[in-house]
Amino acid sequence: MNDMVIDFGIVARSGQDPIEFKSGETIFDTGDEGDVAYVVRSGTVEIKFEGVVLDTVAQGSVFGEMALIDPAPRSAAAIAQGDVEVVPIDKRTFLFLVSEAPYFALNVMRLLARRLRNMSD
Amino acid sequence: MNDMVIDFGIVARSGQDPIEFKSGETIFDTGDEGDVAYVVRSGTVEIKFEGVVLDTVAQGSVFGEMALIDPAPRSAAAIAQGDVEVVPIDKRTFLFLVSEAPYFALNVMRLLARRLRNMSD
Repeated sequence: MNDMVIDFGIVARSGQDPIEFKSGETIFDTGDEGDVAYVVRSGTVEIKFEGVVLDTVAQGSVFGEMALIDPAPRSAAAIAQGDVEVVPIDKRTFLFLVSEAPYFALNVMRLLARRLRNMSD
Repeated sequence: MNDMVIDFGIVARSGQDPIEFKSGETIFDTGDEGDVAYVVRSGTVEIKFEGVVLDTVAQGSVFGEMALIDPAPRSAAAIAQGDVEVVPIDKRTFLFLVSEAPYFALNVMRLLARRLRNMSD
């Protein structure tokens, strides 16, 4: 499970409206273009690559951050597990979080490191 | 190639002496315990997993950072490509860099993201 719980006060400043997905819906697919990350406001999201679950992202946690770090098509898919509500985070908000909140940067590193380990297992 | 060039002035504060490795020597192996990252002071280091080169780390760049982010045995091997000199970075120095230098945090994220993409390719 993803342990990166972030502050919704900060996310609210991004001015983005939440987006709803029904259970089983694809939030993004491997190979999609994307320029936002997402915070889970309610529900759970599965990160999958070639059918393997790399991570399960719970409420308050981030996914899709690779698009902001290293621009390239999505390297994995994100699927709603039950009904979910997510808030997009654009690059400007992400850079603000990294520079103002070192714990946020460490948490993003931790989740990337965990996905690397899950992928090599 | 790894594009994370870091400031040797900051690394020097870690008070660690450089360590030399001859061409082909293993700096660490997959499964090893480890509690330091390294900066390459001279030469080039290959990061390999099951015989596949995940990254090539040049002078001024960091490797082995996963041990500081997510404590677990080394997830890949680091091999000297030609004679190299590396400087260990302990957790305290790493946390200092993350909190004082947002560009450093972003660069660590970028290299983790690149390795994830290399691994899924």
